[in-house]
Amino acid sequence: MADPTDDRVTCAVLIIGDEILSGRTQDTNLRDIARYLGVLGVDLAEARTVPDVMAEIVAALNALRARYDYVITTGGIGPTHDDITADAVAQAFGVELYEHPDILAMMSARWGGELNAARRRMARVPVGGELVKNPVQGPPGFTIGNVFTLAGVPQIMRGMLEDVGPRMRGGRPTVSRTVRVEGSGEGVIAEPLEAVARAHPDMSLGSYPFFGPEGYGSNLVLRGRDPAQLGEVVAELMAALKATGIANVREVESA
Amino acid sequence: MADPTDDRVTCAVLIIGDEILSGRTQDTNLRDIARYLGVLGVDLAEARTVPDVMAEIVAALNALRARYDYVITTGGIGPTHDDITADAVAQAFGVELYEHPDILAMMSARWGGELNAARRRMARVPVGGELVKNPVQGPPGFTIGNVFTLAGVPQIMRGMLEDVGPRMRGGRPTVSRTVRVEGSGEGVIAEPLEAVARAHPDMSLGSYPFFGPEGYGSNLVLRGRDPAQLGEVVAELMAALKATGIANVREVESA
Repeated sequence: MADPTDDRVTCAVLIIGDEILSGRTQDTNLRDIARYLGVLGVDLAEARTVPDVMAEIVAALNALRARYDYVITTGGIGPTHDDITADAVAQAFGVELYEHPDILAMMSARWGGELNAARRRMARVPVGGELVKNPVQGPPGFTIGNVFTLAGVPQIMRGMLEDVGPRMRGGRPTVSRTVRVEGSGEGVIAEPLEAVARAHPDMSLGSYPFFGPEGYGSNLVLRGRDPAQLGEVVAELMAALKATGIANVREVESA
Repeated sequence: MADPTDDRVTCAVLIIGDEILSGRTQDTNLRDIARYLGVLGVDLAEARTVPDVMAEIVAALNALRARYDYVITTGGIGPTHDDITADAVAQAFGVELYEHPDILAMMSARWGGELNAARRRMARVPVGGELVKNPVQGPPGFTIGNVFTLAGVPQIMRGMLEDVGPRMRGGRPTVSRTVRVEGSGEGVIAEPLEAVARAHPDMSLGSYPFFGPEGYGSNLVLRGRDPAQLGEVVAELMAALKATGIANVREVESA
């Protein structure tokens, strides 16, 4: 709950995907979003999970966006035929979809002649929407009105969230710092990261892995309200990583 | 609310608890229920998560029980002041709560003179309700109308589920098979997958990508009611993928 002196700022989450309702996939995005919003001071007020069915997504989205300050959707923005979230958001807002030139440019640079119709689906954004940065891999998400449409893959969703908080009203301001680990995967980072996260439940710690020809590793983003405390936790995390034998750790500019 | 000409049986899940919406607790009950229902052939059609607030629980429960064949609630049936699920279910059905004699007898045997007011809260059942056995520990759940009210603690919830299935009008079980593609992303998989999906509208085909330092690809899950037809479609999909030049395709154990 926000301070009584503050306006309460509310958010709902709409999880889109047959794979959650079939039990095949364990959702973890709700918990990650809840923690991220908690640090911002935004109340997660309700969550719904709906199947990949146009009418269901549209109805749930319209109910939630009318009732809460913000809605975050996860899932259904990939290139396959069952990825209909962009279509549903556009329908809910009564607008068309168009191929966003920035995404097309990004995709052309990445895929060149292999930019086929399926991939181009991921360039579609509702008219009037803006992009949500994707620091992990693949095309960005988007936002229109009070709705943020993010990926369903947890690592990508978490990365996109970092570009959502700064656009939300009234959440108490947070500061973030980024620790970059090179040459170690999340498998070895997870344990020290989780230990530090558990010791500081009032802070948000996210891990955004990268890999490619130039190397692999992860950017660890720490977010909190108190800059002094944040500095201490950055130092604690770096010490914990090094104590685990992870040598290549340094602080970088936050995204 | 299934079409009477259809043998589709639907269920919704209502997750009740501030601890889920705050991100403190990772829900796992939805997935467990989904898998349990899948084996029964009951479709999990929607899930909602609401806070421990009477009006929110009542509104969500009334919306869901009007629309689906069954509703399963989890959480909020403990002894503390914030456990208001029984009150909310009674209010939704417009009935009173009473202390069920079987539960009181069980609790007296267990607690004797220590059966205090807080514990007696857990003996309350809506008038017209029946008990749902708890084979694990603590008091039973209950059912009224098309609603089953279960514990939130995962081990107890799962135990109670065993007494829910036999009371549901069973649909036919679905079977699933999984085709794993390695070294190809969804961008190239999408086209053959969509062609096969369109040719078989009575089956569910989903693509669940994975990626990491050790590789990337996608698990393609096919789900249907007719095992023979499912086998034919698996073969058709594998042939279509290979015809597109996707070499690393094999069937794996379904989850």
